[in-house]
Amino acid sequence: MLVKKIEDVPAAQVQMEGAKNVTVRVLFGPDDNAPTFAMRLFEIDAGGHTPFHAHPYEHEVVVLEGEVILVSQSEEVPLEIGHVALVPPDEKHNFRNPSNSRPARMLCFVPVQYQK
Amino acid sequence: MLVKKIEDVPAAQVQMEGAKNVTVRVLFGPDDNAPTFAMRLFEIDAGGHTPFHAHPYEHEVVVLEGEVILVSQSEEVPLEIGHVALVPPDEKHNFRNPSNSRPARMLCFVPVQYQK
Repeated sequence: MLVKKIEDVPAAQVQMEGAKNVTVRVLFGPDDNAPTFAMRLFEIDAGGHTPFHAHPYEHEVVVLEGEVILVSQSEEVPLEIGHVALVPPDEKHNFRNPSNSRPARMLCFVPVQYQK
Repeated sequence: MLVKKIEDVPAAQVQMEGAKNVTVRVLFGPDDNAPTFAMRLFEIDAGGHTPFHAHPYEHEVVVLEGEVILVSQSEEVPLEIGHVALVPPDEKHNFRNPSNSRPARMLCFVPVQYQK
């Protein structure tokens, strides 16, 4: 078995176009021989956001700290600790941190073949 | 997209042989058309534990509340908030709550075909 402390995993800036003030830590992925799905921790700084985009795989999301707004083409849903979200494949979405001061943290799982 | 509050999802007692004082909430699974993996919230009461067993698929685990001991055939590792764990396929394991008074909560993800 493999146990990690989230804080021990290095965070990398998300460089995708449309991302602002977001870092990612790959907690379990191909390098850990995760068989089916990858676990990533995203930290979105105050005012930051992920790209508004779609892709052919799902997200399963858990908020660990702060608040994030999950945005789709038809709605905006605030998520905080105690909420979980499933974004189906091919649905346009992003996550943004509406706070002026607090970072937000969320786990986001994807099928492992899409975790580079 | 599909958003849930963990508390709104009903908890069911885990009836498997070897489980003691454990409930499960299926947050995302086959009924939600989760494509690849299922998200479940396990609550282990003080002194409770899951069965010590193995199966041909992995677990990815996140502790949300309290402390759990992840037990394998060779070691016992305490997990608390900030820890994540990957139990590979076919590795014997269980989770137990060592507290006399506090419940423990953890998310446990599995490939969706194994979520009944």
